[in-house]
Amino acid sequence: MNETIDLLMKHRSIRKYSSREVTEEQLQRIVQAAQMASSSSSVQAYSVIAVTDPEQKQTLSVLAGNQAYIAECPVFLVWCADLYRLKQAGEQHLDGAESYIDSTENFIIATVDASLAAQNAAVAAESMGLGIVYIGGVRNQIAEFSEVLQLPELVYPVFGMCLGYPDQQPDVRPRLPLEGVLHRGTYNASSVQEQVANYDNTYTAYMQARSGGGKPAAGWSQFMAKRLAEPVRLHMKDFLQHRGMMRR
Amino acid sequence: MNETIDLLMKHRSIRKYSSREVTEEQLQRIVQAAQMASSSSSVQAYSVIAVTDPEQKQTLSVLAGNQAYIAECPVFLVWCADLYRLKQAGEQHLDGAESYIDSTENFIIATVDASLAAQNAAVAAESMGLGIVYIGGVRNQIAEFSEVLQLPELVYPVFGMCLGYPDQQPDVRPRLPLEGVLHRGTYNASSVQEQVANYDNTYTAYMQARSGGGKPAAGWSQFMAKRLAEPVRLHMKDFLQHRGMMRR
Repeated sequence: MNETIDLLMKHRSIRKYSSREVTEEQLQRIVQAAQMASSSSSVQAYSVIAVTDPEQKQTLSVLAGNQAYIAECPVFLVWCADLYRLKQAGEQHLDGAESYIDSTENFIIATVDASLAAQNAAVAAESMGLGIVYIGGVRNQIAEFSEVLQLPELVYPVFGMCLGYPDQQPDVRPRLPLEGVLHRGTYNASSVQEQVANYDNTYTAYMQARSGGGKPAAGWSQFMAKRLAEPVRLHMKDFLQHRGMMRR
Repeated sequence: MNETIDLLMKHRSIRKYSSREVTEEQLQRIVQAAQMASSSSSVQAYSVIAVTDPEQKQTLSVLAGNQAYIAECPVFLVWCADLYRLKQAGEQHLDGAESYIDSTENFIIATVDASLAAQNAAVAAESMGLGIVYIGGVRNQIAEFSEVLQLPELVYPVFGMCLGYPDQQPDVRPRLPLEGVLHRGTYNASSVQEQVANYDNTYTAYMQARSGGGKPAAGWSQFMAKRLAEPVRLHMKDFLQHRGMMRR
């Protein structure tokens, strides 16, 4: 189709990196590309913290669920939803008028802004031959993690992103069938079970091939059931409200 | 640098479209590229509704704040955070065990998944010469908007996206200074005011040039103050909880 679409279609997460450095120029290019993503009314309610110090990466790696590749990658980026800058910028003109910075709406805007910027960064990095993996584990011990990064109120780490030259060639993981995520005109609830069943077959075959064709693998929906039944990161609501977000 | 980064750096939102069609093949390519974005543990907790019917686009355009380009663009995409499919997939294996689908954590995952997928779609579309604009106005009258699209519980429209061939060439809007969003090691709170002041100057000059150089323009921080003081979409929290999300 074209070079960019070919690149997008080849994406897979990289969890093993070579020792080759990411240059300062590359880092700047990647974040500049991130900045060009759309932002709701130009609020640009996100920040990114670049961590390169080995000791700090090691600390963050442990806090994010002992994922070794966080310590091993040359640059670890932490993408934050950031309403603190917005507050600092706006309040000087508010003359004490009420501010709605703590609304769920603003929380969504900041989370989306961080995500759009990060995805541009991911695409930019991959276009240079670098690999990335998103790290949701930054939310495991989010209070401690935020403290290491000295995040002020109204800022939270949405996810991390390892950055570096790949030292592995994982397969591209199959996605849901196209018509499972693409609806026409209205949400097609009646086809969900069928799409999931089709995907379960694809997923089972993929997982089985990946494990060398041996033991039978579970389907996608079985993994999802396991996820649903786990009380994962139930601290998020309290944490966010404590930090001044999502209060109304 | 390379073709993909050049493309990312050229992004600007398009609000005027030519009458040239977007083909079914293009739409499928765009959504396939979207599907290749990362997703937390492969949950793929998003859906996208493609709206092409002129009458339906007109209805949605009015509900999203009377933005005419929603009616005028050939394809209007509505990107939804979707925990409904996850629930449908998982519950068949749960045997009545408690599910944490309603956690703030899962709400964040679904919102991020929708955003990463959408940004890949935006990049793919622009690589084909199409233009896009994100539409936050889908959250203005979110209950009515959701009804038109027949969204089930656990699904909400995060934003819309107009898609079509550009019939305008807007300028690229200046972003915050790089060091305003990129922090090193820890969050640099002490530099925020300085970065905002620098950006205010850039923004004022840009806005003044855009209006033909006439009247003096406000800085970015003044626009932000106006935004903060407006009680925008305060219905979001109630709406989301009513639809089964973010309850704990």
